[in-house]
Amino acid sequence: MELSKYYMEMHNYVKDLQERICSALEKLDGRRFNADRWSRKEGGGGITKVIENGNIFEKGGVNTSGVYGRMSSEIARQLNVKEGEFGATGLSIVLHQYSPKIPTIHMNIRYFETDNGDHWFGGGIDLTPFYPNENDFKHFHKVLADACESVIKGSYKQFKKECDDYFTIKHRDEMRGIGGIFFDYLRNNREQHFELVKSVGEAFLESYLPIVKSRMNEEYTNNDKKFQLVRRGRYVEFNLVYDRGTVFGLRSGGRVESILMSLPPEVKYPYNWQPPEGSVYEKMQSYYQPMDWVNG
Amino acid sequence: MELSKYYMEMHNYVKDLQERICSALEKLDGRRFNADRWSRKEGGGGITKVIENGNIFEKGGVNTSGVYGRMSSEIARQLNVKEGEFGATGLSIVLHQYSPKIPTIHMNIRYFETDNGDHWFGGGIDLTPFYPNENDFKHFHKVLADACESVIKGSYKQFKKECDDYFTIKHRDEMRGIGGIFFDYLRNNREQHFELVKSVGEAFLESYLPIVKSRMNEEYTNNDKKFQLVRRGRYVEFNLVYDRGTVFGLRSGGRVESILMSLPPEVKYPYNWQPPEGSVYEKMQSYYQPMDWVNG
Repeated sequence: MELSKYYMEMHNYVKDLQERICSALEKLDGRRFNADRWSRKEGGGGITKVIENGNIFEKGGVNTSGVYGRMSSEIARQLNVKEGEFGATGLSIVLHQYSPKIPTIHMNIRYFETDNGDHWFGGGIDLTPFYPNENDFKHFHKVLADACESVIKGSYKQFKKECDDYFTIKHRDEMRGIGGIFFDYLRNNREQHFELVKSVGEAFLESYLPIVKSRMNEEYTNNDKKFQLVRRGRYVEFNLVYDRGTVFGLRSGGRVESILMSLPPEVKYPYNWQPPEGSVYEKMQSYYQPMDWVNG
Repeated sequence: MELSKYYMEMHNYVKDLQERICSALEKLDGRRFNADRWSRKEGGGGITKVIENGNIFEKGGVNTSGVYGRMSSEIARQLNVKEGEFGATGLSIVLHQYSPKIPTIHMNIRYFETDNGDHWFGGGIDLTPFYPNENDFKHFHKVLADACESVIKGSYKQFKKECDDYFTIKHRDEMRGIGGIFFDYLRNNREQHFELVKSVGEAFLESYLPIVKSRMNEEYTNNDKKFQLVRRGRYVEFNLVYDRGTVFGLRSGGRVESILMSLPPEVKYPYNWQPPEGSVYEKMQSYYQPMDWVNG
């Protein structure tokens, strides 16, 4: 199978964006990312860029991959497509910070194509804050809304709802954070969807860096930290039980350390923890539900 | 549906065993368990006994439940039985200790019956150590072998293999610990299988307490602790991705906090951690594979 020009352009785009994002984060943190280059014998490979024990970033990854070749029957089954050759390329970011005043961030953009002419884009950004700084959440959603609306009118509302649905910890009936945008299987207009994915890619630093900069020097208490560690436990619950990328990756023989790079560096699981009544944590917890942050 | 005498006797047995085990652990630790009694509107309930921040036990639960009523279609599908009335009762134990010299322990025994005459026992015990004290592992497996063989000749070998298979983290091709015994859907001889389950129940304290007593005053290093926290991360990986009880419980609307009581109190997920060459941790890691601890 010959890989399409969209695959090639997307692969170049995500590698370039990976460099730009890592540079911006390194400038802020002072610590460098380490790069792990890996390849798979069936075709392609990736670059896992990891930061650990930085000044701001406790653990984070900015990963790209571009893989192709014959699909395993497991992959075909999970993707609900016919077995054959495929190409897939994308960028994934997860950043966990020491300070509970700085939210955890996640972004992913991806492109997939098969040898029978099927192809689609997917992606999203979502924020997991631990402190109820409402203005940060409004800023974050506003940037995402602009990124979507500038390419496809009316798309933010739809992608925001898909994000609220997707990042829900179903057995707790709560979201893992305050959402963002999520879309998948965008098939019918490759030019436009490629524009959308790039617009979302460019929105990453704009949506997130101002929040980091304004919160990185704020003090925090032991209770703030405890709440963060408990909520990180919920992050793990979501990723290992519900996240399609994680579950699919682990079951289809993906690179375990790159997939589980998303897990927070340190986590607590106390029994039956509840936020004290009237606390900021109770307020924060009330925001882990679908809410209108742009017009609300 | 009328619950059988096996349900009644098993339910009484697990509640009595819960009391005896909690007393023995409290005597050792000095701290008491807290009891949460819960009930479900469809029928039955349980007692979740939790210890946190003890002198030895950092977080642990000794839980019983006895539930009955109409099966949800989700439960019927997951159990692969016809929809109808059911009764289920059992005991679950997970204990996580501060000291990495003391292994984490897990036990479960359970009985299930339906209104069309189907019924089965299941259960098992497995050990998750963090330090290569081989004699502890031999003692542990010897007690389990005796508990099985005294009721069903030849059963230890089979249940040990089922445990090795079951408690494997498939995407890493390693076990979460050094195994033990595991069995499920034991259907054809209710008297004998009830004897087996009681024999396993009685083996809990005998298999585990001597290890706790001999290790509880040993010193440990920061590196020992770090290894424990990393391996606890693998414990979470197993429970949330593969453990049938956990996944089934969460998806069928079980009590979340009782199900996730099994998660360790504190966990670390460093990126791509490997034990230093020649270290005790490398040795310990080599034991997370099927091994013959009784005759080996």
